[in-house]
Amino acid sequence: MNAAEEDLSLVPPEPGEVGLVEPHDFVHAQPFTFESGQVLPGFTLRYETYGRLNAARDNTVVICHALSGDHHCAGIHALTDAKPGWWNNFIGPGKAIDTNHFSVLCANVLGGCQGSSGPSSIDPRTGRPFGLAFPFVTIRDMVRAQKLLCDHLGLSSLYAVVGGSMGGMQVLQWGIEYPSFVRRLIPLATTARESAQAIAFNEVGRQAIMQDLDWNRGDYPKGGGPRVGLAVARMMAHITYLSDESMDKKFGRRRTGAADNPAYTFDVQFEVESYLRHQGESFINRFDANSYLYISRALDHFDLPAAHGSLEQAFANVEAETLSVAFTSDWLFPPEQNREIVLALLRAGKRASYAELAMNLGHDSFLLESGELYTLVRSFLGSPRTP
Amino acid sequence: MNAAEEDLSLVPPEPGEVGLVEPHDFVHAQPFTFESGQVLPGFTLRYETYGRLNAARDNTVVICHALSGDHHCAGIHALTDAKPGWWNNFIGPGKAIDTNHFSVLCANVLGGCQGSSGPSSIDPRTGRPFGLAFPFVTIRDMVRAQKLLCDHLGLSSLYAVVGGSMGGMQVLQWGIEYPSFVRRLIPLATTARESAQAIAFNEVGRQAIMQDLDWNRGDYPKGGGPRVGLAVARMMAHITYLSDESMDKKFGRRRTGAADNPAYTFDVQFEVESYLRHQGESFINRFDANSYLYISRALDHFDLPAAHGSLEQAFANVEAETLSVAFTSDWLFPPEQNREIVLALLRAGKRASYAELAMNLGHDSFLLESGELYTLVRSFLGSPRTP
Repeated sequence: MNAAEEDLSLVPPEPGEVGLVEPHDFVHAQPFTFESGQVLPGFTLRYETYGRLNAARDNTVVICHALSGDHHCAGIHALTDAKPGWWNNFIGPGKAIDTNHFSVLCANVLGGCQGSSGPSSIDPRTGRPFGLAFPFVTIRDMVRAQKLLCDHLGLSSLYAVVGGSMGGMQVLQWGIEYPSFVRRLIPLATTARESAQAIAFNEVGRQAIMQDLDWNRGDYPKGGGPRVGLAVARMMAHITYLSDESMDKKFGRRRTGAADNPAYTFDVQFEVESYLRHQGESFINRFDANSYLYISRALDHFDLPAAHGSLEQAFANVEAETLSVAFTSDWLFPPEQNREIVLALLRAGKRASYAELAMNLGHDSFLLESGELYTLVRSFLGSPRTP
Repeated sequence: MNAAEEDLSLVPPEPGEVGLVEPHDFVHAQPFTFESGQVLPGFTLRYETYGRLNAARDNTVVICHALSGDHHCAGIHALTDAKPGWWNNFIGPGKAIDTNHFSVLCANVLGGCQGSSGPSSIDPRTGRPFGLAFPFVTIRDMVRAQKLLCDHLGLSSLYAVVGGSMGGMQVLQWGIEYPSFVRRLIPLATTARESAQAIAFNEVGRQAIMQDLDWNRGDYPKGGGPRVGLAVARMMAHITYLSDESMDKKFGRRRTGAADNPAYTFDVQFEVESYLRHQGESFINRFDANSYLYISRALDHFDLPAAHGSLEQAFANVEAETLSVAFTSDWLFPPEQNREIVLALLRAGKRASYAELAMNLGHDSFLLESGELYTLVRSFLGSPRTP
């Protein structure tokens, strides 16, 4: 614990809240060979931890984030923060992932743009952002980098790995890659390989970015780049994260402005348009377009059956117990694709259970407040051994 | 029949085929007031007809096309044409819409870019394309312009109006606007109003176009304009016309090039990517970006329940008999939205029937070869009175 952490600890957290947290940087100063064969002399992962590591150093729950997520999954960085971390409803003292029992660890993925090494990082050879000179990143690379962080932190094993969407892919990869290191897997709203439709949506997003002249083959100054293309990619992707039903409930055909005056204009007319434009605009201020390309490519490449011959063979050495949760309204990684994972685990003789929750937000349901999801996860996790 | 038509008629059509056809221009040289209140001094509709008009002039079947369609729905323009009109499988001697019995009429919509007046037409006041100075177009405007064409052709009534997607919206509008003029309605894969999700997809497409610097607020030379934005809009929209299942069947995760060499590149890797890029590129050579904005806005604006108080009231004066067909895998205008139309017609005391076909191509199923669809339409149409 460094001085800064001691200062923060003087501020008592809100009841049930993780409270003030701060990110840390893990600098791996040794060569790292990516799955592509490309090598970096080293890398950085930005991460956060909440809760206390026990004496056995085996009560850590690793959280894996989705495409546009980051390491800041709970708590606040300053008392003035308007919003807590992205999974704050899920993580904290007494919450589904209970920081009274567990030490939570979440790192920005390799290839990301929130502090971990990625295409927007400075290439020491040139003094400018890597851009396309950054090695291609796979889900497996992301997990291998996180394992090095766990080793650095001296963890003896992981109590659980939890994540939704691309986070769920990492969860599966963790169980396959480090079978004896991980005791529980909770993949949510995910897939063992994307369908053609999911690849297609990613590809349109990439085309929007790469066809934007400001992309310049990935060579643009920090904070610059293809803002239009990235906003379009995000707007489109956002539709795939919701469901038709939830959009109809949330926006329907409600118009902005005077309802009785159907404006004949290409400006915003429907609330759903206004919402999407806001999503696109806020995204370009926090996300790097090259990272979007790299990470969406990692999603498309992920294919456990192809990598191992079959999904059952992929899981042959898994030792962890798995809880898979799917959401009825998720049409990006629909229930069938989650069910396949559990069926393959069971066929491979592993302990695995499956729950399908009737939540109507679509793919993003895993981020919603849901007593059912909390209860499922809490009881699956149980309590760690007394430290 | 003019001289050119007589020449063409010397070439015998292939058995079952419409054969050589040619487009005609209907020039309405009187002021036309759009639903928005804007006025054009006149307009042109480009259209085609196949089959023979009977003496009573009441055996015409009007075909209404979808967003990216046109007036060329059957036959060929030259013996060297690689492809016939877009609904050639459906229209012809002995086909579901039998040109031995019916005179088929199809016009490019007002606002379109295939010969009818639209934003890419030359504004006589400036000698340059109208661009955004073209009046806003609604589905009702499209239908009213087609009615003027029917009047010009001296038709006494329409035997039927048929169309899928946006064509289906026009079909419904025909029945509402000209109840005594239309005897049968066949709306396919359509909706009485778009959901928030459908509006959202259209909006992302429009943003891709309008944020492209080459759009220049709609002011660009003919053949120029926002090619990148239009291609992205088309690629995205194309995904919504297919189904997850059909894309998996057609492309799956098949890679282009060597399968055992997973190239780490942002170039095309999956067949579905190659297909989409081709869709985008071919579209920009045949479609005007401003027309895309105008027509997609017309789709979003279409809202029969809002325009009439309720869908039942919208249909209060309909005299035609309706056959509605939906497709199980259509997630853009899904079966429920088609069923709603028929239920409202029935509640309004009209003759209407509904069929749901288990076809897996998604929204575009209505364009597929389907014996079931052919039989449904053929038996619903029956035979016209002897001329």
